[in-house]
Amino acid sequence: MSAPQFLVPVLPDGDVFVLDGPEGHHAATVQRLRVGERLVLCDGSGGTAAATVVGAGKGSLELSLGERSYEPAPDPRLVVVQGIAKGDRGELAVQAMTEVGVDAIVPWAAVRSVARWTSDKPRQRWADTAREAAKQARRSWVPPVAAPVSTKDIPAGALVLHEEAALALSAVPLPSTGDIVVVVGPEGGIAPEELALMADAQPVRLGPSVLRTSTAGPAALAVLSARLGRW
Amino acid sequence: MSAPQFLVPVLPDGDVFVLDGPEGHHAATVQRLRVGERLVLCDGSGGTAAATVVGAGKGSLELSLGERSYEPAPDPRLVVVQGIAKGDRGELAVQAMTEVGVDAIVPWAAVRSVARWTSDKPRQRWADTAREAAKQARRSWVPPVAAPVSTKDIPAGALVLHEEAALALSAVPLPSTGDIVVVVGPEGGIAPEELALMADAQPVRLGPSVLRTSTAGPAALAVLSARLGRW
Repeated sequence: MSAPQFLVPVLPDGDVFVLDGPEGHHAATVQRLRVGERLVLCDGSGGTAAATVVGAGKGSLELSLGERSYEPAPDPRLVVVQGIAKGDRGELAVQAMTEVGVDAIVPWAAVRSVARWTSDKPRQRWADTAREAAKQARRSWVPPVAAPVSTKDIPAGALVLHEEAALALSAVPLPSTGDIVVVVGPEGGIAPEELALMADAQPVRLGPSVLRTSTAGPAALAVLSARLGRW
Repeated sequence: MSAPQFLVPVLPDGDVFVLDGPEGHHAATVQRLRVGERLVLCDGSGGTAAATVVGAGKGSLELSLGERSYEPAPDPRLVVVQGIAKGDRGELAVQAMTEVGVDAIVPWAAVRSVARWTSDKPRQRWADTAREAAKQARRSWVPPVAAPVSTKDIPAGALVLHEEAALALSAVPLPSTGDIVVVVGPEGGIAPEELALMADAQPVRLGPSVLRTSTAGPAALAVLSARLGRW
């Protein structure tokens, strides 16, 4: 297994660093990393530093830092506009999409979204889920979770997953740069009047079956990642 | 949304049918289907019959049957050997894989599988999950869940998802008939000695990130479905 990854706001300069706070607690107390073990520090924006534990305290680790590397920002970006789902389905979607390689997530208050977000807390929960999933998946970019949008704010030309679409996602032409925006409906699907409100929306099909909202985004990202040569 | 689907052991002959038992209860009491509404009866083995509700009783529905259709057995078959995972991760994997189009699921008692199956109950739970997911996804074939296997029973030539593999799943040659077997490790991954025990195993990579066991199978199936022209 590859070395575990921990997030820091900014990659430290110099050869030594003390990892403390919640990430230090997680590394020292939960994952119980010991002297000599290797880990990766990541700034969540493409930057990583290899590190080796040289001292273990109570809730913190002393690290010797090695090679830095930087992964450029992805282009094209894979952006998913995700219909707000009830229960834990939204978080399951965010978790799996982050593993599979989403570059940005935009929550969407759709007509058929049963749950209504009345504070920033649910968005923050999605952002925390994306952060944890990016760490687990060893991704060097943590996908941001935007403030929720309404239907008219969905970018023009978005690929809208729809079971009755004539065109398959596996066959639709893809741009080689910029944003590829995929729209995933909430559990009850996308309402016809919503589709009409989206400028230049391009309905696309993802197989013959009806997919749950927590399955559709990750499956679409897998197909797109393979098509773009990322996988 | 497409009409809801209900499973029957055998598709009825004739023009009328009473749907009772657990499926009738679900249709009449939980989903509250009413006279005039449409549904689909499915035998889980490719056969379906369109139906219209002509009478609603307590826990049962009287149906008028319409057009029958039959979807041939898929070929090639997509078979996933799924490492047994702890908690609900196994069921989440089975659910999403069934939506995305797996044709058969084989539980695998891997070295790093924390959970041990000591009765048929967990297999039955996976089979129930596959059955429910196939209904929800409107699939006419319910993927069977086999008895658990050990490493030496994994079919020769299987594609083994492995983060260090040189070959990408999106590039590996695929047979046009027979079984395409994909092996997904449990949460701790596949042990080196297990890989050595699998005859002619073909390690393949699925992207640059580390995927959870409940994400890897669905993502692999999405890539394969697109490559096979199913999607």
